[in-house]
Amino acid sequence: MVVDSLFVPYVYSFDQKHRRQPMQMKDLLGGKGANLAEMTSVLKLPVPPGFTISTDACRDYMVGGWPKSIDAEIKSHIAKLEKAMKRKLGDPSDPLLVSVRSGAKFSMPGMMDTVLNLGLNDKSVKGLAKVTGDERFAYDSYRRFIAMYGRIVLGVEGHHFEHPLEAAKDKAKVKTDAELTSTVLKELCEQYLEVVKKETGKAFPQKPEAQLRGAVEAVFKSWNGARAIAYRVREKIDHNLGTAVNVQTMVFGNRDDNSGTGVGFTRNAATGENVPYGDFLVNAQGEDVVAGIRNTEDLDALKAKFPKIHDELMAIFVRLEAHYKDMCDTEFTIEQGKLWMLQTRVGKRTGAAALRMAVDMTKGTVGSKGKKNSWKISKEEAITRVAAEHLDQVLHPQFESGAKKVIAKGLAASPGAAVGKVYFTADEAADASDRGEKVILVRSETSPEDVHGMMVSEGILTARGGLVSHAAVVARGWGTPAVVGAEAIKIDGKQFTVGDIVVKEGDIISLDGTTGEVVLGSLALQDAKPPKEFEIILKWCDQVRKGKMAVRANADTGEDATNARKLGAEGIGLCRTEHMFLAEDRLPVVRRMILAQNPAEEASALEELRKVQKKDFIDILKAMDGLPVTVRLLDPPLHEFLPNVHELEIEKATLPASEWTTEKAQLLKAAQEWAEHNPMLGTRGVRLGVVKPGLYAMQVQALMEAAADRVAKGGKPNVEVMIPLTVTREELALARSWVVKGIADATKGSTKKPKVSIGTMIETPRAALRADELSEEADFFSFGTNDLTQMTFGFSRDDVESRMMPAYLEGGLLKRNPFETIDQDGVGELVEIAAKRGRAAKPGIKLGVCGEHGGDPESIDLFYRVGLDYVSCSPFRVPIARLAVAQAVLASGGKKKSDTK
Amino acid sequence: MVVDSLFVPYVYSFDQKHRRQPMQMKDLLGGKGANLAEMTSVLKLPVPPGFTISTDACRDYMVGGWPKSIDAEIKSHIAKLEKAMKRKLGDPSDPLLVSVRSGAKFSMPGMMDTVLNLGLNDKSVKGLAKVTGDERFAYDSYRRFIAMYGRIVLGVEGHHFEHPLEAAKDKAKVKTDAELTSTVLKELCEQYLEVVKKETGKAFPQKPEAQLRGAVEAVFKSWNGARAIAYRVREKIDHNLGTAVNVQTMVFGNRDDNSGTGVGFTRNAATGENVPYGDFLVNAQGEDVVAGIRNTEDLDALKAKFPKIHDELMAIFVRLEAHYKDMCDTEFTIEQGKLWMLQTRVGKRTGAAALRMAVDMTKGTVGSKGKKNSWKISKEEAITRVAAEHLDQVLHPQFESGAKKVIAKGLAASPGAAVGKVYFTADEAADASDRGEKVILVRSETSPEDVHGMMVSEGILTARGGLVSHAAVVARGWGTPAVVGAEAIKIDGKQFTVGDIVVKEGDIISLDGTTGEVVLGSLALQDAKPPKEFEIILKWCDQVRKGKMAVRANADTGEDATNARKLGAEGIGLCRTEHMFLAEDRLPVVRRMILAQNPAEEASALEELRKVQKKDFIDILKAMDGLPVTVRLLDPPLHEFLPNVHELEIEKATLPASEWTTEKAQLLKAAQEWAEHNPMLGTRGVRLGVVKPGLYAMQVQALMEAAADRVAKGGKPNVEVMIPLTVTREELALARSWVVKGIADATKGSTKKPKVSIGTMIETPRAALRADELSEEADFFSFGTNDLTQMTFGFSRDDVESRMMPAYLEGGLLKRNPFETIDQDGVGELVEIAAKRGRAAKPGIKLGVCGEHGGDPESIDLFYRVGLDYVSCSPFRVPIARLAVAQAVLASGGKKKSDTK
Repeated sequence: MVVDSLFVPYVYSFDQKHRRQPMQMKDLLGGKGANLAEMTSVLKLPVPPGFTISTDACRDYMVGGWPKSIDAEIKSHIAKLEKAMKRKLGDPSDPLLVSVRSGAKFSMPGMMDTVLNLGLNDKSVKGLAKVTGDERFAYDSYRRFIAMYGRIVLGVEGHHFEHPLEAAKDKAKVKTDAELTSTVLKELCEQYLEVVKKETGKAFPQKPEAQLRGAVEAVFKSWNGARAIAYRVREKIDHNLGTAVNVQTMVFGNRDDNSGTGVGFTRNAATGENVPYGDFLVNAQGEDVVAGIRNTEDLDALKAKFPKIHDELMAIFVRLEAHYKDMCDTEFTIEQGKLWMLQTRVGKRTGAAALRMAVDMTKGTVGSKGKKNSWKISKEEAITRVAAEHLDQVLHPQFESGAKKVIAKGLAASPGAAVGKVYFTADEAADASDRGEKVILVRSETSPEDVHGMMVSEGILTARGGLVSHAAVVARGWGTPAVVGAEAIKIDGKQFTVGDIVVKEGDIISLDGTTGEVVLGSLALQDAKPPKEFEIILKWCDQVRKGKMAVRANADTGEDATNARKLGAEGIGLCRTEHMFLAEDRLPVVRRMILAQNPAEEASALEELRKVQKKDFIDILKAMDGLPVTVRLLDPPLHEFLPNVHELEIEKATLPASEWTTEKAQLLKAAQEWAEHNPMLGTRGVRLGVVKPGLYAMQVQALMEAAADRVAKGGKPNVEVMIPLTVTREELALARSWVVKGIADATKGSTKKPKVSIGTMIETPRAALRADELSEEADFFSFGTNDLTQMTFGFSRDDVESRMMPAYLEGGLLKRNPFETIDQDGVGELVEIAAKRGRAAKPGIKLGVCGEHGGDPESIDLFYRVGLDYVSCSPFRVPIARLAVAQAVLASGGKKKSDTK
Repeated sequence: MVVDSLFVPYVYSFDQKHRRQPMQMKDLLGGKGANLAEMTSVLKLPVPPGFTISTDACRDYMVGGWPKSIDAEIKSHIAKLEKAMKRKLGDPSDPLLVSVRSGAKFSMPGMMDTVLNLGLNDKSVKGLAKVTGDERFAYDSYRRFIAMYGRIVLGVEGHHFEHPLEAAKDKAKVKTDAELTSTVLKELCEQYLEVVKKETGKAFPQKPEAQLRGAVEAVFKSWNGARAIAYRVREKIDHNLGTAVNVQTMVFGNRDDNSGTGVGFTRNAATGENVPYGDFLVNAQGEDVVAGIRNTEDLDALKAKFPKIHDELMAIFVRLEAHYKDMCDTEFTIEQGKLWMLQTRVGKRTGAAALRMAVDMTKGTVGSKGKKNSWKISKEEAITRVAAEHLDQVLHPQFESGAKKVIAKGLAASPGAAVGKVYFTADEAADASDRGEKVILVRSETSPEDVHGMMVSEGILTARGGLVSHAAVVARGWGTPAVVGAEAIKIDGKQFTVGDIVVKEGDIISLDGTTGEVVLGSLALQDAKPPKEFEIILKWCDQVRKGKMAVRANADTGEDATNARKLGAEGIGLCRTEHMFLAEDRLPVVRRMILAQNPAEEASALEELRKVQKKDFIDILKAMDGLPVTVRLLDPPLHEFLPNVHELEIEKATLPASEWTTEKAQLLKAAQEWAEHNPMLGTRGVRLGVVKPGLYAMQVQALMEAAADRVAKGGKPNVEVMIPLTVTREELALARSWVVKGIADATKGSTKKPKVSIGTMIETPRAALRADELSEEADFFSFGTNDLTQMTFGFSRDDVESRMMPAYLEGGLLKRNPFETIDQDGVGELVEIAAKRGRAAKPGIKLGVCGEHGGDPESIDLFYRVGLDYVSCSPFRVPIARLAVAQAVLASGGKKKSDTK
């Protein structure tokens, strides 16, 4: 028997029998395609039939152009569709119409293109009019199709279509599209066809096959559109995945008043409350709901108008939650009294909602009505349901309470508080942000064209649209505060008015995405108040983490340390002593130390610094009593404490000689002496210790005196002294000898000695490679992955990140910004090598990380896999790290490298 | 039977029966100690008996102070010596005297200290006078001992002793020490004892045991003296080795006129001629010969005065050469008609001598007399006899012939030509060198105290001393040109005179170390003329290298390429295209390209550059016809082609507005735009290609047009296009696509296409780690070990090498300057990883190195071991690389990593 096993199709029906669950085939079918197949073949929902052109086709298209064999496959699937629907594409008597939608593996809302009503042409529009008995509907559909296809497939700018429409409405003296008569719409269709001919030089394609190919190709191309690329960079989606294309029979929510369309959530996506939520519009197409052009009605209104359909939808919601064991969002259409499900998927949610739902779902009850669910999830599953972004959101600051001038109120679409200057277009917002301004983007409604402006905004305010409008969905996804549908706002060019109040471009407003309030001027911010589920989830995380990997914070003051401890930090992984040096009252002393003309002057300055550092250390050790505190000896090059050498040179060149003081001359000399070509690779870290040994001795003395002071007061200080930027064992041995001497000197004669260990940062590639040697002189290693990344790539963050990184990410030359998520293949390998060699030479050595990657979930996953003992991050990221570590533990089945002997 | 196996002695007799050949025990006995043991127990030469205190003792002393058990051991060895010599240390009737000398594993001439005549005191000096019947000799010996011991062990400055001596000579109206009577010498001894008491506050030690311990300890301490440390840093000797101490019975060349002392070489160490050479003095101690205080006589004079001893010495020379199969140098003393050998070792030699001897010794003939030797060496052995420094020396430039004012002539002590400003003290020479001056150090004679000045000098001139004087030995070792014993020169403070001519500090002179001429003013230099053996040895090297590892040169012009090919380069490993950009006539065009306000302006500037680059490339490809030429696309950051941003800023701040031209403003804007915090890690290499794609396209076009031109003229260009600073495969793939397109465009339609391949530099740690991926897009890798070292260590060469490196080397924090010799453990491992991964992914990939390490012998050894196909270095280092590769092949037994499948 010969099996045609070599044929791998490009096209799959929604009801295709796959070998695996469709939802596991997102790579091939894309998210939407997999969902449509799941809905059709597994959930047996009422889904308009259709088929999916796979991501394979898109990838092959990107490499070699339109795949030849695809035409025949599409033709055969269209034939199948025509047979099932008993209508034919382009049939002048009763045409089949289809939608063409993109659908990548990961949701990219609004980033790519959709074409509806495909199959209409000058003849079939008449057949549609006849068979529906609704000429107005037919021409309205045709008008929409020409405009959409013209814009998306043929590249005609949108205003060419908007202008005739507005003119027609003015002429007819009506406000909404729905009020236009069929005669007017017929004329509009003719005008639109003219527009296409004029703008593209060709007639609008009349053959449905040509229309379909154009639409599919447009979707393929949209994958590499600037918007889509920018979105993928931001969302860290691989540029090589490609998108699938879904071709689906059209159903019409805008057929008549017995029709409608809507979006429904099985629970409230903003609060997490277990109450279904939805927006719908009678006699409308889906885009009307999402674009927020008309204000929508809620599910209660649906129940009142379509009670049977409401019940059917609610039953589907229950089935969906039981199937996905999660909150789903859906798109549905009612066509002449029949419910069609167009899309269902696990829904996006706010941070607060994610936390609440995760906790609720472990209980198996149906919140408000108290009914037991047939399903529930485990605590471990709950942990995986919460994303870092969710915690980040609920940790967003809120406005302080107090008097405020609320000028308008809209829907609380995305929580958090934002203050910024008002801009009215995405371009202007982006420009202002480039200038360093904090921006609030104000639009009537937003569209994907606005994304680059939305991205850089502190907050987003729209006058129209509901909680599932483009603005709301996008803002929630990013955790950007947003207020939508604030109808009181009237936008007019570069200003908006609310009653008598005029807010102009550049004026400052405050937005509360949690309450929906819009406030004139700048409100003060206060700390976030996370919901009660926040602590519950984190407690579960800690149970999973226990004994596996600790979370510490980077903190330089007692206040920071206190705050970090509140947020769950189990110690300090990095206390940067240079921050203590930069305080306004200390900088002059530091400079005196640098400028010292003789050892006595230097010693006197160091003595002053010792006193203040001691106090700093006491505060920190007190706040972290009983927990480890890693103190890094001075790291940055000395010129960071001096005025800019070039500014001084200019001063010298321009000042009258009488004003060029001895002090300035001394500062200039020192600044010149300490200036470096490449400070990143210069005299800093332990090299500074070699050049100015008194400095490190002073710091160790201050630290040990502080520890002794804590011991005397009954505290339990646990000090880890960290040597930065080591490259050779000999260097570390020398530095260690200073510290050992400092400890001995400071604790001489005392009976109760503080707990102290000595270690080094691993932040140069050489240190990573020679970790076995270094471990001989170190009780612990702390990976400084920021510098390690700079040196491994040869990327100066100050220079490269802004100049090169965008081009590198957009061009796919780098998959990730390696300063945000650790470069697993290069820098990650060095971390792994160092951990392995360090442990091999000294099995008990403590390993941690204190770079910014310590607060990044994906990086944490790597750190857990290679067996580090702790991560350390900024205090605000501590909860996120606690979550990420728990997720890493769960993902690995609880194993880490250091577990295997 | 119980063996006292736990006792490891600190002290060994010269006639100790060792388990191994003494010469293989230099680690323990030091070079001199091993030699004395070899001479005594193996060669059975007439060596004054004695013992060696091992390097173990020195190392233990450095860690824990004076080892306790050593006193008893020394005592027992002294007893043995006393028994053998039938005299007792400090015996008032017939005292035994000993010398105490340092002796490290590697020779450190004059770097550490020696004490002679130890055992004399107020009483034993009388015994010595009585038993020798020579009071003058006894007190002269005692005087010398007090001064030497006082200076070296007790730290009394030398002038305290010199002053009374000069005064005594003045008073006695004599010129030399030898003319002083015993009465005067006796008085001098008393004065010297007073000096010691006054300067140290303690009486001169009278007990021989105390004297001995003091001397041994002084030798131990001298290991870590500033001079010794500086020498070891320069000579790359491990600071942890420690020195041995040799205590040996004194014999006296200054006993009477039937005594004498000398230094002998079995062949001429300056020319390599197979004729024994030596200096000797009647009635003198060894230091008199080496210090060059008296002018010496030669071996013919020895033969005339001591015919029997001359024959005995010549017989020993033959035995020594047969034993060591090499040229030896010896120190000998005649005491009352008996010959004693004090030292023999394989002798240092000039480059020309090393080459001549290596070739001669393969023939097995005794040069001048034509007799067959009983031994010879193989060609392979001959290759190992020549050091990189030797080749470097014979490649030293010589003076051009022509008129010159020779003001004096001395001994040609170290070949080569030097021009510089005259300085008369080591300190002033060092200061002048720090100011950037080229220095000639002029001294009556040199001593170890002068080494820091000698190190920085272009050439050394002394008025006194022979070819084995301190100045001559040290200069030869370093390849520094030197003329010694130029007696016509009279030094007087900060000037010297020759007849009427006065040469003052700062005046320029020229020295010819090959002819011994001293010339007033600056002579023009011409290329070196290496001896005929140079080509012979290198031909042998090439035979050994063949098919193992090629040597290429780094060259940026046709002229350099021609020169490199003459010196044996087998291609160009690095052609830096930026050097072409920096030429005076091109820089303005480059700036126009950078400042271009629109694509047309940029294109026009690029077009101009293309034309000149094409010509450059034609020249190079012509010079290297048939051999591979690796052209690196533009690498440095663009701001290197712009004026200094800070100078411009100062100009702007100080110039009247009218003089601040638009052009200057544009330059400032561009300089600010392209300025970087850490240029080393900034926008350069392939990143530049991404930012300014037209640049690389232009370079590829110019290169391919040049190659096409060569093909058209019947040439065989072999072009390797090299992409710098790659970090990801995607980046390399993109750059490769530009090059591929450039090649296709330039060779379209032509039938004979030039040979082209495309590769990348491996110069970031990430590139090394991801070499497997990168190999997919590369035909070759070239290791840029300079940058790889900077990034692996986090060392900015511009900042760290001058500021930190001396302290790091002296403190032992680094064993080597990693920019001179590759860091085997860190950077070397990355090279090895990359070679392994690259070859595993693409077995045929060509691997080379083009950093400065490509010309460093030790680094070449590593590159050979990890399996690279070629090294590339500056043209002048090509012969050295050819030698070093051959030596690496021989050292590895002809195997390299890539040989093993």
